[in-house]
Amino acid sequence: MIVVMKPGASEAHIQHVVKLVREYGLKEHIIYGTDRTVIACLGDKRAVDKGAIENAPMVEKIVPILAPYKMASLEVKKERTVISIGPKQFPIGGTKIGVIAGPCAVESREQVLQTARQAAAAGCIGFRGGAFKPRTSPYSHQGLGKKGLELLAEARQETGLAIVTEVVGLEQIEEILPVADVLQIGARNMQHYPLLEAIGQTKKPVLLKRGMSATLDEFLLAAEYIINAGNPNVILCERGIRTFETYVRNTLPLAIIPALRERTHLPIVVDPSHGTGHAYMVPSMCLAAVAAGADGLLIECHPDPEHALSDGAQSITPEVLTQLMVRLRKVAQAVERDL
Amino acid sequence: MIVVMKPGASEAHIQHVVKLVREYGLKEHIIYGTDRTVIACLGDKRAVDKGAIENAPMVEKIVPILAPYKMASLEVKKERTVISIGPKQFPIGGTKIGVIAGPCAVESREQVLQTARQAAAAGCIGFRGGAFKPRTSPYSHQGLGKKGLELLAEARQETGLAIVTEVVGLEQIEEILPVADVLQIGARNMQHYPLLEAIGQTKKPVLLKRGMSATLDEFLLAAEYIINAGNPNVILCERGIRTFETYVRNTLPLAIIPALRERTHLPIVVDPSHGTGHAYMVPSMCLAAVAAGADGLLIECHPDPEHALSDGAQSITPEVLTQLMVRLRKVAQAVERDL
Amino acid sequence: MIVVMKPGASEAHIQHVVKLVREYGLKEHIIYGTDRTVIACLGDKRAVDKGAIENAPMVEKIVPILAPYKMASLEVKKERTVISIGPKQFPIGGTKIGVIAGPCAVESREQVLQTARQAAAAGCIGFRGGAFKPRTSPYSHQGLGKKGLELLAEARQETGLAIVTEVVGLEQIEEILPVADVLQIGARNMQHYPLLEAIGQTKKPVLLKRGMSATLDEFLLAAEYIINAGNPNVILCERGIRTFETYVRNTLPLAIIPALRERTHLPIVVDPSHGTGHAYMVPSMCLAAVAAGADGLLIECHPDPEHALSDGAQSITPEVLTQLMVRLRKVAQAVERDL
Amino acid sequence: MIVVMKPGASEAHIQHVVKLVREYGLKEHIIYGTDRTVIACLGDKRAVDKGAIENAPMVEKIVPILAPYKMASLEVKKERTVISIGPKQFPIGGTKIGVIAGPCAVESREQVLQTARQAAAAGCIGFRGGAFKPRTSPYSHQGLGKKGLELLAEARQETGLAIVTEVVGLEQIEEILPVADVLQIGARNMQHYPLLEAIGQTKKPVLLKRGMSATLDEFLLAAEYIINAGNPNVILCERGIRTFETYVRNTLPLAIIPALRERTHLPIVVDPSHGTGHAYMVPSMCLAAVAAGADGLLIECHPDPEHALSDGAQSITPEVLTQLMVRLRKVAQAVERDL
Repeated sequence: MIVVMKPGASEAHIQHVVKLVREYGLKEHIIYGTDRTVIACLGDKRAVDKGAIENAPMVEKIVPILAPYKMASLEVKKERTVISIGPKQFPIGGTKIGVIAGPCAVESREQVLQTARQAAAAGCIGFRGGAFKPRTSPYSHQGLGKKGLELLAEARQETGLAIVTEVVGLEQIEEILPVADVLQIGARNMQHYPLLEAIGQTKKPVLLKRGMSATLDEFLLAAEYIINAGNPNVILCERGIRTFETYVRNTLPLAIIPALRERTHLPIVVDPSHGTGHAYMVPSMCLAAVAAGADGLLIECHPDPEHALSDGAQSITPEVLTQLMVRLRKVAQAVERDL
Repeated sequence: MIVVMKPGASEAHIQHVVKLVREYGLKEHIIYGTDRTVIACLGDKRAVDKGAIENAPMVEKIVPILAPYKMASLEVKKERTVISIGPKQFPIGGTKIGVIAGPCAVESREQVLQTARQAAAAGCIGFRGGAFKPRTSPYSHQGLGKKGLELLAEARQETGLAIVTEVVGLEQIEEILPVADVLQIGARNMQHYPLLEAIGQTKKPVLLKRGMSATLDEFLLAAEYIINAGNPNVILCERGIRTFETYVRNTLPLAIIPALRERTHLPIVVDPSHGTGHAYMVPSMCLAAVAAGADGLLIECHPDPEHALSDGAQSITPEVLTQLMVRLRKVAQAVERDL
Repeated sequence: MIVVMKPGASEAHIQHVVKLVREYGLKEHIIYGTDRTVIACLGDKRAVDKGAIENAPMVEKIVPILAPYKMASLEVKKERTVISIGPKQFPIGGTKIGVIAGPCAVESREQVLQTARQAAAAGCIGFRGGAFKPRTSPYSHQGLGKKGLELLAEARQETGLAIVTEVVGLEQIEEILPVADVLQIGARNMQHYPLLEAIGQTKKPVLLKRGMSATLDEFLLAAEYIINAGNPNVILCERGIRTFETYVRNTLPLAIIPALRERTHLPIVVDPSHGTGHAYMVPSMCLAAVAAGADGLLIECHPDPEHALSDGAQSITPEVLTQLMVRLRKVAQAVERDL
Repeated sequence: MIVVMKPGASEAHIQHVVKLVREYGLKEHIIYGTDRTVIACLGDKRAVDKGAIENAPMVEKIVPILAPYKMASLEVKKERTVISIGPKQFPIGGTKIGVIAGPCAVESREQVLQTARQAAAAGCIGFRGGAFKPRTSPYSHQGLGKKGLELLAEARQETGLAIVTEVVGLEQIEEILPVADVLQIGARNMQHYPLLEAIGQTKKPVLLKRGMSATLDEFLLAAEYIINAGNPNVILCERGIRTFETYVRNTLPLAIIPALRERTHLPIVVDPSHGTGHAYMVPSMCLAAVAAGADGLLIECHPDPEHALSDGAQSITPEVLTQLMVRLRKVAQAVERDL
């Protein structure tokens, strides 16, 4: 951490900050520059709230130097994490790219089984579908609950696909655990810390979605909560961020893939369905995500999007998915990976 | 809801949409324009997922006409809601403006009581302080929990201030209810629907903070969840949004005050501490919020910000608060209100 | 400037950076920390492109310490700048707050004179109106040009109001100079450097609008261009920024007022018309801007907004303006200023 | 255009809007719904400022239906535009993808010729380099001017690469025209209308960069200005947008590629250098852009980025470029195109 003093700060102001720095268990190193005095603070600064020092007289700003996360960082663990999921233990984070497809919400037996069969036939390795749905409006479809979980279990049984399903609240964990191969934490829950800690106490693989306006540090700190609670099996998922753009539901910032690679050992999956909000954009963004180095894709797929109870606008059909898988494989091979 | 067809849409495409519209329980009204055909859909459209129709062939876009919330809207309830809080039943939403001050986190008996006394003496009507803290990093101070609640109860007892404290998870509601006069739902929890519903089942006044990238509709839909569950006592709180600006922690968009006045009957409070992130900006933003028509303020105040365990950078001292209250009263009177 | 090395950087990597730092005319100061080595660079760093060093091996990031502007900063000039404008030499930046009102575009003699008379009667000190209009669409009204300037001159003659009008391109400066008391640089031109330099060569007061996504540094660097070219009479104007919010045309971030006060001696004016985009929000945002410490306001006002050729939605009528001025005066006095 | 009335609008309010609609040369079509009356307006609405009507009493909002651009749209011209550039007339917008590389600024003869030779050898079809530079700070390197143009001409002569160079102001067009094969309009100038019109009067191919916070409509309207002035040879260039993200200089929204394909016939090029700001991210974003369907790439390349006078942090070396071209070709072929 670097404390930058305002021009005109006196030696007394500087010594006041030095005193604070020492109280926080850090060692100071003062550099008297032409225009500014800066105080470099040595030691492990992760637990210190930097804001407190900013309030001292004649302090201009505080500049953090270290990333605030540890266990999620490449500094602590250099080799890439590979997480095996589902009945067939597909390794997410290795050479092969895993595609997980399925509807936003579980709606009926036929919808689930038909989609799961077609996804499996097309080469997908996971099936997604929400039994519990966090909906922006209290008047929207809220999910089938327990009945939905049974349908997911049946799809898993028949196809061997890994089941990825969202946990909306702590109270559902127990019920979902036996059915899910991967617990999904939604974007709205990325900073719901009691949930992160509770899921951290299971050993189940977790798909952690980035909050729609989360910074990279906040995203990795959410992962840190889970790892810190005992569960190292965290898959990061970029699903688009909120910006001023209106031709998309969210702006999909694929440069986060190389940015995360520089900082963390955790695998990275991309959700181009929420990341765009429109079915016609999904195929090209899937291809782009694979070319950019994603370890997996999460795709919304529905046999009848026009009648989907949620996210119809961004769902592709199983037929489009099947064709897309062929193209994805070619791009994966072009970047020396496979599908 | 309006469905806009692409240029070149055939009568068959139009009739396909008409069929969908009727399946959703709506009545169509087709307008054949020079460049586009548009299909106006009549009926109550709040429960329909508009996205589903967007996926039909040759549909260009869907334009919603109605706001998605009902009970939070001025259409359903025209008179302004006034919510009385605390031992002295101060009415939030009336002519008088209520100032709620206190530290981010409850840290010690002395910190709490000293701040509460000075806040009361300065004319504040509420005391804020977190016993349970949602923190971005797992390594940060997480709050005193039960002990913190006891200190808040003591502050209430001694000063008569209304206690405003945050509920981080469902599991804390029961413990917090007896102490809190107002349950705060933090920005990160604005879309934590199980929490909204659970708090909706109490009758306790709620301070609902806007999520840092929530739209106005999403904000009012979160309020709708609480009202719909049975609790009409919702106070809306603007606390700044995430934008590209870096000289502030959040950008404080005060124009939301007249915008909400046009749409909802609920009272509106502003939090200039989170809304700026820097103590030196807090007084001018408090004055601006009052001039813009806020019904109340939520201000972080700490007797020793340099040693605050959280949010030190944005906390003002009780001395600054005391002077600020004098200036706030003058501005309140200038806009024909009082403090 | 601080260079932060990656963990694992060798002494050779560090010495390579030291060599670069010296080549840039700076002096290094190396601090070997527990987790990172950081290299503080001493000297005047404003002309160095920090990016170049970031590309050296094992450099993690570059952290600038100094603000990139000089002449616009409080460090170089501590007393507040006061700029006198118009026939009556109203001082912008002093105790009194100056209100400038008028239509977006000059449309007709009657429109201009009627509005100017009512603005003057209400206590405004300036009249705004565009003779040359930068329009987003080539099919929109582009302004009356020379004829418009004549109408502005007539309004000035009759009312004594200071004329504020926009310069869209270099080629218009000569024509506009005799009529304008203040040259306005629009948000879209904030980084049009040839224009900034050309206007910098006049001594005419300048109203510099913030670009809709300009950072605070970029805004002050644009002012620096003008001052550096010889014209110190720069009035800064906040007119709202582009964010994800859709209930406003732009989000008006009033906290920029205290933020600029900490950094610059230049006067600050706020434009709540562009800053919101809706007439009904303009009065409350005017009141808020004054309470927050603005030195002036720029308000769009049109006698018949329903037929305005541009910006009709955000224009208030002269009648609304007249009432607003009364309320503004009260708030100004409440914050110890006047109108 | 649709006018949505507020609930409670009387027939008189509706008829007042009808009168306005007719005055604007449109035909009304009134739909009386359960909760709202909406007035559909038929006719060519591009020249009407919709805002004006919003100000009429009891109008809730105005919803545009048509895109505001014409000649840039697929409605007016269905076949994709192909623009041939440079001495070898490489077709941008066809099956083959064109890569344009070179330094941010022209610095020296050796820098230009070395980079151009290596770019040509690697298979690039264009060379970029600024002789006139728009710089955020007045103290930064402002370009070599005329001397820079001579160096670009020499590079063209020797390598046969198409020269792409930026026009900062109208006054440079004449000087730049003989040297440039493609005139670049920078992001900061995207809404500098006099420049757009002046360049529209040449027939020279134009590379139009998206403004850093331009909407899709504003981007295409800027193209419309150029086409409307007589020059149909517009290449659109996405270079990243300003968002809350700080790990990148700009957020690169690749979904704009399919979005533009749905709306315009103009070719689309991506600039991953400005689009990320960091050299290490450039290769993966180039691969992603090609996979997503870009017609070309614009890449900053410098033989010695550590000493580059501008944009060093985001420049890759010719060696990295050469390797990247091999990988790009594979991805291009995987999506059935070529390089």
